[in-house]
Amino acid sequence: MQTELSRKLGVEHAVFGFTPFPAVAAAISRAGGFGVLGAVRYTAPDDLKRDLDWLDEHAGGRPYGLDVVMPAKKVEGVTEADVEAMIPEGHRQFVRDTLAKYGVAELAEGEASGWRITGWMEQVARGQLDVAFDYPIKLLANALGSPPPDVVARAHDRGVLVAALAGSARHARKHQQAGIDIVVAQGYEAGGHTGEIATMVLTPEIVDAVDPLPVLAAGGIGSGQQVAAALTLGAQGVWLGSLWLTTTEADLHSPALTRKLLAAGSGDTVRSRALTGKPARQLRTEWTDAWDDPAGPGTLPMPLQGLLVAEAVSRIQKYEVEPLLGTPVGQIVGRMSSERSVQAVFDDLTRGFEKAVDRINRIAGRSGT
Amino acid sequence: MQTELSRKLGVEHAVFGFTPFPAVAAAISRAGGFGVLGAVRYTAPDDLKRDLDWLDEHAGGRPYGLDVVMPAKKVEGVTEADVEAMIPEGHRQFVRDTLAKYGVAELAEGEASGWRITGWMEQVARGQLDVAFDYPIKLLANALGSPPPDVVARAHDRGVLVAALAGSARHARKHQQAGIDIVVAQGYEAGGHTGEIATMVLTPEIVDAVDPLPVLAAGGIGSGQQVAAALTLGAQGVWLGSLWLTTTEADLHSPALTRKLLAAGSGDTVRSRALTGKPARQLRTEWTDAWDDPAGPGTLPMPLQGLLVAEAVSRIQKYEVEPLLGTPVGQIVGRMSSERSVQAVFDDLTRGFEKAVDRINRIAGRSGT
Repeated sequence: MQTELSRKLGVEHAVFGFTPFPAVAAAISRAGGFGVLGAVRYTAPDDLKRDLDWLDEHAGGRPYGLDVVMPAKKVEGVTEADVEAMIPEGHRQFVRDTLAKYGVAELAEGEASGWRITGWMEQVARGQLDVAFDYPIKLLANALGSPPPDVVARAHDRGVLVAALAGSARHARKHQQAGIDIVVAQGYEAGGHTGEIATMVLTPEIVDAVDPLPVLAAGGIGSGQQVAAALTLGAQGVWLGSLWLTTTEADLHSPALTRKLLAAGSGDTVRSRALTGKPARQLRTEWTDAWDDPAGPGTLPMPLQGLLVAEAVSRIQKYEVEPLLGTPVGQIVGRMSSERSVQAVFDDLTRGFEKAVDRINRIAGRSGT
Repeated sequence: MQTELSRKLGVEHAVFGFTPFPAVAAAISRAGGFGVLGAVRYTAPDDLKRDLDWLDEHAGGRPYGLDVVMPAKKVEGVTEADVEAMIPEGHRQFVRDTLAKYGVAELAEGEASGWRITGWMEQVARGQLDVAFDYPIKLLANALGSPPPDVVARAHDRGVLVAALAGSARHARKHQQAGIDIVVAQGYEAGGHTGEIATMVLTPEIVDAVDPLPVLAAGGIGSGQQVAAALTLGAQGVWLGSLWLTTTEADLHSPALTRKLLAAGSGDTVRSRALTGKPARQLRTEWTDAWDDPAGPGTLPMPLQGLLVAEAVSRIQKYEVEPLLGTPVGQIVGRMSSERSVQAVFDDLTRGFEKAVDRINRIAGRSGT
């Protein structure tokens, strides 16, 4: 699985693996892919520094990258307290009532919560970058639009390629205009924030829209067949996130959540605003149902919703309240039915890829291959 | 593009083209694909007979098929009048108000309307089959569940393969249990009735679920690249519907609708219950917006919604009321940007397929191909 981009980055397989876990990112890079560590949960620079130290030591000298969540537009002088004040009391009451209905216990005194939202604040992301640029990262990805121009320039000065996610050709062209090097075409079926256009349609559309920029296909990719299909559509690589959640190197801190992921079918996800206020695909739970119920108060816009539910989500996760327990994940969750090592997943991807190429050659009547 | 199934059916390319237009079906079969005529609009057996005569004469001796819309469950003793009586007056008033708002004129005295719904009644579909089995059709497809057992048996007695559409692995397995020969895996991005699982995920899932039955991939396929990707995913062929709507052989009877289709992007469709009461992907219009608006009365379940809007849809189409004018079509509409002959579309598909196979072979390091 070699493309111009994978050769440029010096990796064996054009498989980019996004993960919040350093152990998974390191294993992806060691297996010949390109591990990308999600930084959103690191609100303290020292925590990120510790995990990047570990990742750098365990990536076997192979390249790796960092994914941040940084808004392109700066919101000046707005504090978390200002945003908190914009949340209606009725919505706060709905959170309390829903948690009470399921008997969800409180966090212990002084226990941290709410990293989901704070990691999205621009100053936090900039703090992450100050740390990350001391490491030999080869790629900086942004999950929320193009990064600000000075960040793009800073990355380019250090020879770091910049990638950004897009759910439409229009967004992809905006990234190109912002000087982005790689567009991640994130299809409807993907986990996390995603638009309505499916990978099969979106990938070639974005490839054409930003030519000659390289495009990574994301969404619905969890087997070697799907990798082959995505590369057939013109992508220079694939961007996989969900698939690693049930690897043995992942540390979800929740056996119940792992069980739910392993049991879920492709129809058990929902694209809901419950988590952040923007549509994000995740496991469908009684929590997402409550927010999507027309009888309820409905969700608030980003960033209010994320702030509103941050503590509740922490409590649900800590106490593993099964009916409410979820996570961002794509429709490919239906294929995640056993815990395997990252290397085993890679072996499966490469074997499946070769078989798929054999198959399409037979169909094309190219018997020599 | 040769698979076991295309060889069994004696066609050059494993490309199945669904279309309501005999001229398009004939041209697809002549071009080396498999033309499938949609029968739903033929309420009078003689009309279907006339068009099948024409198709048989113009298919160049190549195989073709028929697509009906037949419910698996029989509803005994219910007439169209019974169903009409179940429609609330508030919904009827909403139709009148919406049409009045846009100044949509009445149909002329005695002018027919409402074929969309009547073609779905089982007795009409059975009348269509009585006609169709006199022709050398090689495939009978059903768009609404498995056909009734006696219809499957009747088809098999005549050596006719039976296909049925499925939006989930569960539905596909039900088709297999009902003795269906071919499952059409219809992804989220497809035009018409469709589920929520995208083609990239759905195709391999259904291939595995019904193995060894052959699967056709539908949804998001409008280029040779996409054909190659779908076949890579394990399909034995592709099922294309939307792509033919803007061919020169198609007869939409509406230059305005053709213009809208040619201008639409991949984001200009919506999966709405406005047309039939079940979610169907179609052009997003002010008509679908009105039905999907939480401030409106909302849609009725199938078959009430189809019956409710049948006359209105006829009026909108006849008078080409542009803001309201739509049609079922998939996200691939973004690729339909010029009127071309069916043969030109096929040439493009086969060229694009070969290029896509070249590309994936380069990525796989198989330089000999």
